[in-house]
Amino acid sequence: ETLGGRFEESVTDAVERFMSLFPLTSSYTSTTSWVAGPMPPCSPTSDRDKILCGLDDIERQIDAGEFVWRMDREDVHMNIEAALTDMIGEPAKKLHTARSRNDQVVTDLRLWCRDTIDKILVRIRKLQVSLVKVGIKNEGLIIPGYTHLQRAQPILLQHHLLAYVEQLERDITRLSNCKERMNFCPLGACALAGTGLPIDRFMTSEALGFTAPMRNSIDAVSDRDFVLELLSANSIIAMHLSRLGEEWVLWASEEFGFLTPSDSVSTGSSIMPQKKNPDPMELVRGKSGRVIGSLVTVLVLCKGLPLAYNRDLQEDKEPLFDSVKTILGVLEVLAEFAQNITFNRAKIQKALPAGHLDATTLADYLVNKGVPFRTAHDIVGRSVALCVSKACQLSELSLDELRSASPVFEADVYEYLGFENAIDKFSSYGSTGSARVAEQMHFWVSKLQIT
Amino acid sequence: ETLGGRFEESVTDAVERFMSLFPLTSSYTSTTSWVAGPMPPCSPTSDRDKILCGLDDIERQIDAGEFVWRMDREDVHMNIEAALTDMIGEPAKKLHTARSRNDQVVTDLRLWCRDTIDKILVRIRKLQVSLVKVGIKNEGLIIPGYTHLQRAQPILLQHHLLAYVEQLERDITRLSNCKERMNFCPLGACALAGTGLPIDRFMTSEALGFTAPMRNSIDAVSDRDFVLELLSANSIIAMHLSRLGEEWVLWASEEFGFLTPSDSVSTGSSIMPQKKNPDPMELVRGKSGRVIGSLVTVLVLCKGLPLAYNRDLQEDKEPLFDSVKTILGVLEVLAEFAQNITFNRAKIQKALPAGHLDATTLADYLVNKGVPFRTAHDIVGRSVALCVSKACQLSELSLDELRSASPVFEADVYEYLGFENAIDKFSSYGSTGSARVAEQMHFWVSKLQIT
Amino acid sequence: ETLGGRFEESVTDAVERFMSLFPLTSSYTSTTSWVAGPMPPCSPTSDRDKILCGLDDIERQIDAGEFVWRMDREDVHMNIEAALTDMIGEPAKKLHTARSRNDQVVTDLRLWCRDTIDKILVRIRKLQVSLVKVGIKNEGLIIPGYTHLQRAQPILLQHHLLAYVEQLERDITRLSNCKERMNFCPLGACALAGTGLPIDRFMTSEALGFTAPMRNSIDAVSDRDFVLELLSANSIIAMHLSRLGEEWVLWASEEFGFLTPSDSVSTGSSIMPQKKNPDPMELVRGKSGRVIGSLVTVLVLCKGLPLAYNRDLQEDKEPLFDSVKTILGVLEVLAEFAQNITFNRAKIQKALPAGHLDATTLADYLVNKGVPFRTAHDIVGRSVALCVSKACQLSELSLDELRSASPVFEADVYEYLGFENAIDKFSSYGSTGSARVAEQMHFWVSKLQIT
Amino acid sequence: ETLGGRFEESVTDAVERFMSLFPLTSSYTSTTSWVAGPMPPCSPTSDRDKILCGLDDIERQIDAGEFVWRMDREDVHMNIEAALTDMIGEPAKKLHTARSRNDQVVTDLRLWCRDTIDKILVRIRKLQVSLVKVGIKNEGLIIPGYTHLQRAQPILLQHHLLAYVEQLERDITRLSNCKERMNFCPLGACALAGTGLPIDRFMTSEALGFTAPMRNSIDAVSDRDFVLELLSANSIIAMHLSRLGEEWVLWASEEFGFLTPSDSVSTGSSIMPQKKNPDPMELVRGKSGRVIGSLVTVLVLCKGLPLAYNRDLQEDKEPLFDSVKTILGVLEVLAEFAQNITFNRAKIQKALPAGHLDATTLADYLVNKGVPFRTAHDIVGRSVALCVSKACQLSELSLDELRSASPVFEADVYEYLGFENAIDKFSSYGSTGSARVAEQMHFWVSKLQIT
Repeated sequence: ETLGGRFEESVTDAVERFMSLFPLTSSYTSTTSWVAGPMPPCSPTSDRDKILCGLDDIERQIDAGEFVWRMDREDVHMNIEAALTDMIGEPAKKLHTARSRNDQVVTDLRLWCRDTIDKILVRIRKLQVSLVKVGIKNEGLIIPGYTHLQRAQPILLQHHLLAYVEQLERDITRLSNCKERMNFCPLGACALAGTGLPIDRFMTSEALGFTAPMRNSIDAVSDRDFVLELLSANSIIAMHLSRLGEEWVLWASEEFGFLTPSDSVSTGSSIMPQKKNPDPMELVRGKSGRVIGSLVTVLVLCKGLPLAYNRDLQEDKEPLFDSVKTILGVLEVLAEFAQNITFNRAKIQKALPAGHLDATTLADYLVNKGVPFRTAHDIVGRSVALCVSKACQLSELSLDELRSASPVFEADVYEYLGFENAIDKFSSYGSTGSARVAEQMHFWVSKLQIT
Repeated sequence: ETLGGRFEESVTDAVERFMSLFPLTSSYTSTTSWVAGPMPPCSPTSDRDKILCGLDDIERQIDAGEFVWRMDREDVHMNIEAALTDMIGEPAKKLHTARSRNDQVVTDLRLWCRDTIDKILVRIRKLQVSLVKVGIKNEGLIIPGYTHLQRAQPILLQHHLLAYVEQLERDITRLSNCKERMNFCPLGACALAGTGLPIDRFMTSEALGFTAPMRNSIDAVSDRDFVLELLSANSIIAMHLSRLGEEWVLWASEEFGFLTPSDSVSTGSSIMPQKKNPDPMELVRGKSGRVIGSLVTVLVLCKGLPLAYNRDLQEDKEPLFDSVKTILGVLEVLAEFAQNITFNRAKIQKALPAGHLDATTLADYLVNKGVPFRTAHDIVGRSVALCVSKACQLSELSLDELRSASPVFEADVYEYLGFENAIDKFSSYGSTGSARVAEQMHFWVSKLQIT
Repeated sequence: ETLGGRFEESVTDAVERFMSLFPLTSSYTSTTSWVAGPMPPCSPTSDRDKILCGLDDIERQIDAGEFVWRMDREDVHMNIEAALTDMIGEPAKKLHTARSRNDQVVTDLRLWCRDTIDKILVRIRKLQVSLVKVGIKNEGLIIPGYTHLQRAQPILLQHHLLAYVEQLERDITRLSNCKERMNFCPLGACALAGTGLPIDRFMTSEALGFTAPMRNSIDAVSDRDFVLELLSANSIIAMHLSRLGEEWVLWASEEFGFLTPSDSVSTGSSIMPQKKNPDPMELVRGKSGRVIGSLVTVLVLCKGLPLAYNRDLQEDKEPLFDSVKTILGVLEVLAEFAQNITFNRAKIQKALPAGHLDATTLADYLVNKGVPFRTAHDIVGRSVALCVSKACQLSELSLDELRSASPVFEADVYEYLGFENAIDKFSSYGSTGSARVAEQMHFWVSKLQIT
Repeated sequence: ETLGGRFEESVTDAVERFMSLFPLTSSYTSTTSWVAGPMPPCSPTSDRDKILCGLDDIERQIDAGEFVWRMDREDVHMNIEAALTDMIGEPAKKLHTARSRNDQVVTDLRLWCRDTIDKILVRIRKLQVSLVKVGIKNEGLIIPGYTHLQRAQPILLQHHLLAYVEQLERDITRLSNCKERMNFCPLGACALAGTGLPIDRFMTSEALGFTAPMRNSIDAVSDRDFVLELLSANSIIAMHLSRLGEEWVLWASEEFGFLTPSDSVSTGSSIMPQKKNPDPMELVRGKSGRVIGSLVTVLVLCKGLPLAYNRDLQEDKEPLFDSVKTILGVLEVLAEFAQNITFNRAKIQKALPAGHLDATTLADYLVNKGVPFRTAHDIVGRSVALCVSKACQLSELSLDELRSASPVFEADVYEYLGFENAIDKFSSYGSTGSARVAEQMHFWVSKLQIT
């Protein structure tokens, strides 16, 4: 309707429905890009003022949910222009001067992404804080450390939790890089080639908080890198959290029994009254699927598109919004779940001896006595085999039994055996040694300003 | 709330929001699986009747949009059971006998997929019909055939359109296989292990139109193959249609200029008044992204899940629904677009001579005269080089010029040159020869019952 | 070099390297499609015989690894034609009559896929047999059944293993459908439009074992559905096996302790001598990634390609070959792993009481006594709460204690408690009841012809 | 074999084959991480020297291709240790002190990725240079600018090419961020928990050129973010280049006819002697598939893995190597292709009038005269409609005809009509105006140091 002139028929209903983005665009577009934009040349002050007042009014209506979006007005831009025309008449026809929907939509989308990243960063920080607090609450708790899901060495729970805090910290820097890289202003690129009207792109760029205007107008309207980079960063976050979700599902199982979630973050069974399921963690794990799926969606979308703008690009929004909504939800629920779990200290303690977690420490003992590592590895291997046949712990072997594997063993060996001794012996930077982990906890408590 | 007994707290708001499927489940679940299910043992006829009447009433309310879904009642099943209890009291407590949400949800989902496939099949048929009709309307129209987007040989437009009809036919058989394979009934698998109550799974299976009950209750509640297979089939459909979309975008360009879409399926530019964009085709091309993304979502989702049911599986629904909605929309819009394009016969005709499309036919001429193909290929290559240097057509070369490349050429060679002659010479089964294409058109007109 | 005529320069080294498929094509192409093809018209018998003999000889050389592939001869087809020319001279120039690499390559690829599916089917059958044999070896072994990785109900190990056998059976039918759908012959479609030479496509189709020639030559050279469908089927297989891999990793952990793999399918640690890792199962789980990645590769590849053949399609081969190789490897290793694990019956038995797995059976008891299911669910919930507070089993509650939850309980309740009693009570088709599982085992032993 | 001690059987052949990474690891691992590592404590100087000399020797052998890799020695680390033992005897057994393959493999992989990024950056720079040089060679060439693949406005070819240079510049900063973020040293994390032996991780980190040692040993062995981030950056690059590939395929078509590739970067047809195909560009477009597929592979791989190291992670290498190899190849071929194309200036010039590319400039003219933009848009729309009916250009309308649409038109309007005038009128920053584009060309020539 509104693009008139050359067109004689309006689009069919099916086409209108198919191309519609109404449920979406109304959720992210504000009138910002108009208000901050340069005023049309030759317009008397009064026109300028009328437009600004009118847009203010429309923005208020939108915020208040009172604005009536009309499907027959094609998109959000046409709706606003038409509403402004209804309101202030002739001057509204100057609104679209030196504008195209191509540069507007991508300006709006960049503003939205920029704000969104800030929201995600806040949620990541909150999750880091929650994890560190779980660590504080469970100081000194030793759990088995796993490789291949086989018990390997004893570790401090704090050490394990901080591994996720580190992952999240990389997520923060990745999103920050993404935000910096996207913060350039496409406004004024118009359809694709810029304009001959006397606009000041540096002024609009600054007014909207961008670092600078984009250097190439064709690139400005066709680039969706910032969407893809945000979706990639989200995919890595989702992958991280799927690992944490998986672990907490494992830890809440009868078999591991490391933790119990409170009723407030669990669900029951409609048929098995004894069940208490850690559903939120399963969903955290599963929702990684849709975040990755959204990334794939937009990569496929952009593949092979010639420059400059193509309508395909409209399809970037739903996967983007879904990815962001999912990530925000997953981060929130994990932080809440973390605050609602109790570690079963007694049960963990009782189960720790299984798995000969002090074997490596025993090898270190031998190395410290001058035994080459490979030889030490063999000696300990034989000692463990002896334990297996006797169904006992390394610390329960007599000195004679140990010496049957190697004469290097002396009475001080028992200071290295048992999981608590083992933890104490770790000393390298970043290791699970108590002092080392305390340093790291201190670092994060301070960085995250936890009081 | 409703699973009571052992739970002391209700879930937090964030968890409730995070796990909710309300906007979704209400769109696919009917009460069917209860109604068809076996009645609880020991229940007097009156209880049975009360339950059936109550469910009928609830179904009517749902259909009429009057049913009040309550977020605090966890999911659609609990809502229905609670509403039934409000309505008929005590007997409603028998509703969930020999049921679990695990087998119910997957039964409902299979029913939904089965119906959905039928809907997609109808739309595919309609698109096939539309394409064949475009062919009928443009009988005899010769266009360039491309490989590497380089003009290769002349082909009939009908031949080209039928290539898509063939692709769609494979889509139909693929979806039909998928439907058959999924049509087995999980109901009665309960949580995962079946039940000790005297139910008749063959009866419920038959009542719901399934081929047979699933043989293994653990498999029944954990299997999502049918979702993945449908999403895969949709991805292949979407890929097919992205090719057609791409082609029609090309064909609508100034450069190709093969077709003009009517205003009813085009859009204009907010800034360039002379533009007429084939947006629906761009969206058809682009929407392949989300269909493929949805497939990836569910593959990632299912990866590495231990048996049997895990809450992650709830996440299968949104990508499934989105994929189906998209495919239905894309098929509809393509059929409509096909009915609203005009082929520019004069412009195509005028451009056809470019590209030496009759070169292969010329080589065939030589082969028929006994020249080995490789030698013929060389001779024609040299003749084309001559045309390029003279900026003329093969048919414009004199016999002497042709004979300078090979003495085998005789006067009858001109019956093989020119794109119309070239088309006439094709004779192999499935080729672009007029008679062959007519046979294929006849086959499809008859199969699709076009009148 | 070999396509001569019009070209004056040969391609640069970088382009030659970039476009090369040598390492690949030599692994799948045989000369079959030539041999079975129709002979050039007008050729005297002696030419035909020379060609056939020459091709036979080349095939022998290829099989023996003696054939010298030359990079400067572009591809496998050009190599064979040139080698034949070196060998028999002039008649070899007729080889390419009524042929194009476009139809040849896709004919070869279909033949390869058809054979490959047969190989995969054999491996799937072997894995099914291995799983059933594990079941036979561990008859009567009860393990916990899980939902949400929480213990839910007792199940028979056989029942659990057969859930995977069922998944694999669907994989078999899916691959079989795929094979049937792909078994149509593109040969004779030539470049895209067919040919004017008198060939018999029905004869070549039959000679190569296809159901029929493809009906549309444009479709014949551009269709890659069969690749995508095989990759999709493989992705579903890989997903299935990732679940089995995940489970066996869990089951091999200290915490579950259900099974111990033999040394022949485990690895050790370079640093922790006590470790024994189920690496093959981790790789089975992880390799699902590349199978899914290969599917995505080809979907992205095909997106938006106009008809007919485009060089992009060459890129279908590596992901296809990698997917197939991975699936064959994963199936083989799983079957071997299955033969090399021991279930720790005593440990499982000892751990089974945890989790109140008989709770649902107790609810069924009440339902059988006429208590509505929802009420029964509540009563059992309270009984379980009592057990939790007393740290005991349901079977260890006194009748008085049980009756404090409901007066319906009578002495016969103890026939329903304990996991062995619970298993015995399941009776529905497909359930974990001993008799039901025995029927299913019988079905599979017979179907798989296990002796 | 080499991990001895507790193991009684060696792994089966199938398992050995399945788990092998030989063809891969030998291509990326050097002995660097050992050489730079801290020496074992308590070792006499002579042991240290023997180890260093031995490793030097082995490195030389590997570089010279003389080193014999043995499949039965499990992996690259075990091979080197065993070879060192064969060479220097007892001291070699100290090699693995304070080491685990878990931290070694990830150290090697980070070193490899770091070097690889530098290689990719060099190739991107080369492509930018090639594109700018194409621009220099074709100064002043005006082509149609497209949106929706419909002609929109005239643009300078230089402007269009620089849009790709901008995309590549973002790729460079993205890869640089990725490199910085990954440049932290995992060495010394050992299996997962660190070590009790007195090592100096800051020393090794510095010796290997890392910024600092990683802070958390569990994170150090389980993190694969750097692989995913590199694969994501590659996917965005591949997407960019698929767009360029698509465009150049279009531009090389008969219909567009903008450019002709030289024979050195084209291929012919085995059947159609007149064809000249831009295959390298089709492959550039198509290879985006495998780059995206590789990203999906590793995302699926990492999903849901519990900490710390799992064998699944071994599967990160093939997709990583394939992605990098593909990106390097695509960048190289594009740069070469760019140097081997000729723009068909005359043909482009002749086709430019089609499409009314000066319509927007005409609207700007009216706006400059005080007509509101929306009104100007309508007026121009009507003028274009008049041209369409008369089959003429806007510049061919008489002043009277123009004034029939609006009385505002005056004689100076003809300074705005025609594509060359139109180009001249663009003036905004980043627009296609000649002066603006010259500034941008100058910027890039200087930045890329093109002489």
